Amino acid sequence: MKLATLKNGRPDGQLVVVSTDMTRFVSAGRIAPSLQAALDDWAALVPQLNALADQLEAGAIAGQVFDPSMALAPLPRAYQWIDGSGYLSHLERVRSLKGSKDEQLQSTRPLLYQGGSDSLSAPISPILATDPDLAVDFEAEVAVIIGAVPMSATREQAAAAIRLVTVCNDVSLRRLVLDDLQNGFGFFHAKPATAFAPMVCTPDSLGGAWRDNRLHLPVRVEVNGTLFGQPNAGTDMHFDFADLIVEAARTRSLGAGTIIGGGTVSNRHDESLPIKRDGIGFACIAEARTVEKLKFGRARTPFLKPDDVVRIGAMLDAQSVFGDIVQTVVIASPAGR
Amino acid sequence: MKLATLKNGRPDGQLVVVSTDMTRFVSAGRIAPSLQAALDDWAALVPQLNALADQLEAGAIAGQVFDPSMALAPLPRAYQWIDGSGYLSHLERVRSLKGSKDEQLQSTRPLLYQGGSDSLSAPISPILATDPDLAVDFEAEVAVIIGAVPMSATREQAAAAIRLVTVCNDVSLRRLVLDDLQNGFGFFHAKPATAFAPMVCTPDSLGGAWRDNRLHLPVRVEVNGTLFGQPNAGTDMHFDFADLIVEAARTRSLGAGTIIGGGTVSNRHDESLPIKRDGIGFACIAEARTVEKLKFGRARTPFLKPDDVVRIGAMLDAQSVFGDIVQTVVIASPAGR
Repeated sequence: MKLATLKNGRPDGQLVVVSTDMTRFVSAGRIAPSLQAALDDWAALVPQLNALADQLEAGAIAGQVFDPSMALAPLPRAYQWIDGSGYLSHLERVRSLKGSKDEQLQSTRPLLYQGGSDSLSAPISPILATDPDLAVDFEAEVAVIIGAVPMSATREQAAAAIRLVTVCNDVSLRRLVLDDLQNGFGFFHAKPATAFAPMVCTPDSLGGAWRDNRLHLPVRVEVNGTLFGQPNAGTDMHFDFADLIVEAARTRSLGAGTIIGGGTVSNRHDESLPIKRDGIGFACIAEARTVEKLKFGRARTPFLKPDDVVRIGAMLDAQSVFGDIVQTVVIASPAGR
Repeated sequence: MKLATLKNGRPDGQLVVVSTDMTRFVSAGRIAPSLQAALDDWAALVPQLNALADQLEAGAIAGQVFDPSMALAPLPRAYQWIDGSGYLSHLERVRSLKGSKDEQLQSTRPLLYQGGSDSLSAPISPILATDPDLAVDFEAEVAVIIGAVPMSATREQAAAAIRLVTVCNDVSLRRLVLDDLQNGFGFFHAKPATAFAPMVCTPDSLGGAWRDNRLHLPVRVEVNGTLFGQPNAGTDMHFDFADLIVEAARTRSLGAGTIIGGGTVSNRHDESLPIKRDGIGFACIAEARTVEKLKFGRARTPFLKPDDVVRIGAMLDAQSVFGDIVQTVVIASPAGR
């Protein structure tokens, strides 16, 4: 089952069911007004949502034309957004850039940070930055939305709580990362609103692409229409989503509708640069720059400039299975001045 | 106007208006089902809420008996909880304990961290810890709930967005603070659910106690019935709530219903220990321990043990104006094992 949240003038949008081929949708408003409402009563409501999806699929309901540009983030505001670090090669490649003073890699327990979730960006929202010199970067990630998880949950409880899967863009202002981390209180100013793909899918609807608590699909990233990377999210994911949820629940319960990011998708490789047509590449600029520094003595790939466009999607059978995130960098003038 | 959220079996509870003397309440369900719903349409709904409060106050509505033990956190789950550091003496006193590697105090711009907001504790919820050796501490703070704030907001916009004021207990597991901060990604495991007082008040209802974007009231803390501290939240607050909101909005907008904490209330003083009946004392154990280490060579005040009770309230005319937070430490056995 594919779900989306469409604009309706309200903060939480309108929950809809989308056909497998992503051409049609039907409102799920009779069942649950919003995705959060569906997650709050998932066990009771998911059979009704599945039945509606079956009717749409069979043509018993004609539905309306699905236009992904009308989609908000699946949860336009969420009660929790936790970003994990499932891929060690991402950490290895960017750690020096981030100015961390602790060089020891966390390979036994995943790192997590608490992200802002009050405003999650629609798939085609601009990346708003106050200053073109903030070193705007993208981070293409897989994310899961979960049901309630008790404190000290087991791996089994964690895996069973995974309700929905999608991709997101954890926008990062690299120039502010060092300040945030040196303050010692973690990411804050360096992480403006995260953007999400227009659709979420239940794990079962992804078939073999969802297994071992990982999404085994390439996440394709283009910058200004040129391939930047297509690392496979199922490869080199050292900590799977069950690991990340267990770690997040170490000292506290997690509410229904918590979103957990798997970290920037990153595969180990030693490709030459620039990235070839069939290459793996990178899912963020910072990694490419670190590799360039090591190979050439200096970084060549610039961070995003105003008007640059980044496109992110997870590819299944030549289809972007959650729809694409397509964001343009826009310099925002301070509000009310 | 005083508002509260009462238990009704749903995650967001029932919004009610409470009489000034805190003895009676009336449901505000006709106006807004939840506090978040009221905040989403504040300008349109606050006149109706005020009118209802006036009717309750005048006795035109009898209302029901208000029992603070039926209260949830005003927002039992929120889209954002940001904790700031308004009081420099708190940072000075605890910094060495927190293991920060950056010794320079942030006196020009306030520190902020992104806290978990998916599950905010009711005023009489236990403090659940997985292990008695985690060094459980309280942090008594003033918090404000705000309307939407644009990115790069001015101080005027920030101050005008303050909708409601209350107190909270930013529960801290001191044994995990060092790990969290050394990981470089900020607080996570060291900060389980924050608890809130049973009522929130509009700034105007606090009269002269709310001025200069600060709450000028003593925040009284008792541990097992003994006074631990009563620092005045309006004294030595270097960064006021407008400063904290401006800083939080540097690179992003803030959604309606964002909660901002002012940081552990902390007054500069050089009192002898233990705290006298009319003393100022401390609003967290960590500060007391640091002062003891400097005076006596070792910390004497233990962290909270199982069954210890902490009580927190802001005092106005001998009344706890938001009602009391009363939490008992309970060791939670891992769920489902």
